[in-house]
Amino acid sequence: MRACILTIGNEILKGKTVNTNAAEIGRLLYFSGYEVYRVLTVPDVKEEIGEGFRSLIGKCGVIVSSGGLGPTFDDMTVSSFAEEFKIPLVLDEGVYNIIKSRAESRGHEMSKEREKMALIPKGSRIVKNEVGSAPGIFHVVGNTKIYILPGVPAEMRSMLKLIVEEIKLEDSFHFEESILLKGVFEATLAPYVTAIMNKYDGRVYIKSHPLLCEKGESCLEVEVSAKSVQLEKSRKLVKEVIMEIKTAALKIGQG
Amino acid sequence: MRACILTIGNEILKGKTVNTNAAEIGRLLYFSGYEVYRVLTVPDVKEEIGEGFRSLIGKCGVIVSSGGLGPTFDDMTVSSFAEEFKIPLVLDEGVYNIIKSRAESRGHEMSKEREKMALIPKGSRIVKNEVGSAPGIFHVVGNTKIYILPGVPAEMRSMLKLIVEEIKLEDSFHFEESILLKGVFEATLAPYVTAIMNKYDGRVYIKSHPLLCEKGESCLEVEVSAKSVQLEKSRKLVKEVIMEIKTAALKIGQG
Repeated sequence: MRACILTIGNEILKGKTVNTNAAEIGRLLYFSGYEVYRVLTVPDVKEEIGEGFRSLIGKCGVIVSSGGLGPTFDDMTVSSFAEEFKIPLVLDEGVYNIIKSRAESRGHEMSKEREKMALIPKGSRIVKNEVGSAPGIFHVVGNTKIYILPGVPAEMRSMLKLIVEEIKLEDSFHFEESILLKGVFEATLAPYVTAIMNKYDGRVYIKSHPLLCEKGESCLEVEVSAKSVQLEKSRKLVKEVIMEIKTAALKIGQG
Repeated sequence: MRACILTIGNEILKGKTVNTNAAEIGRLLYFSGYEVYRVLTVPDVKEEIGEGFRSLIGKCGVIVSSGGLGPTFDDMTVSSFAEEFKIPLVLDEGVYNIIKSRAESRGHEMSKEREKMALIPKGSRIVKNEVGSAPGIFHVVGNTKIYILPGVPAEMRSMLKLIVEEIKLEDSFHFEESILLKGVFEATLAPYVTAIMNKYDGRVYIKSHPLLCEKGESCLEVEVSAKSVQLEKSRKLVKEVIMEIKTAALKIGQG
């Protein structure tokens, strides 16, 4: 099944913030058995957020978004999502009370900005925020399951832990392993990689990443991954292919 | 003017690689005067790369892509781009000779995989690769300028340096500055931020990021940015607004 990631925030677009959230979500989705199909980042603008969700729905069975759930004027993910899909917002009393007592326990009054975080698209399920105020939201549009999570990494991460079991695809296990080949050039290994990929006919995926090792020596990281209905089967395939790559590296007199 | 970033690679989608390239390109574009409008990541699949470029063209005056220029079977950005826009690929003799002598100086033969990197969409301009083999490509489709750069960070970075002058918008200067307010809650400052933004009527942008300071104290990073035809004017506006935020923080008894 395909999964898409939508990250929301000007700070990501202009490179002030490196998008580590997308990487964390991507890892979770990949090892839950999904093919991660798109990562899209849009600005803090109502129409752009709406268009972001719209462009990914239908492409993916699951969308995980991150960002724009806080109290400030430019936190507008929930309202933009609701408006785009014409879902009314309703005040969730449970969430309202949690946010209110959290604010009051710190000597703050409940405000319009805090109340906003308790406005939830009708028909959504809440994902509890164990770290901050704004809850996450689970909503289904058509055949697409949508998780709307916060952008603050600690809050997002705590919610990923809460959803990891329900999001997992039961019949799909990825296994991957990397080897480091010293003094091997990507272009020299490339035809061997192609031949091995063809031999295994789509059951394994091999990707190489040129790196610099110590003393500026050229190194090649070769990553082999496989997906199947049993983890043991994926592991076995990967180990087998890694042996073939090592043999190829020896054959070309390197590695 | 709007700018879009397209990053290509399964390793980014599944979170093996954190997308620092997008952040570096985003910073360059932002400080060159652009509104960075989308970052999109697509898999190493011909149709998806084509669709990625297609979906951004018309949205942005400039697209910078990164990834998929190397010699392996899954480096297919140039051919996917060319196929999507029906541009024939031609062997660039200058590039071919550079790649050939580079390979031979290291004791390798010219191969099909290395030759692939010299196939350039007709009508493109080459961006020299001062670090690796595959050149970058500049091509115009309709009203959109497209820079196709490698994914290896050192190679990409060296090309950004080569294009920074030509990409810069002459009449546009961003300035930004951040302050750290200790013990300030985002929701408490939010109405002041909104009021200041309204007062300046779109000439400044204020964004707050909740952080943890030492001893777990709540802190708020407040970032103020402005864009105008003169750097000095942007700087003056930002300094003025930062003073207003400090005053607001004092008024609410924090900061």
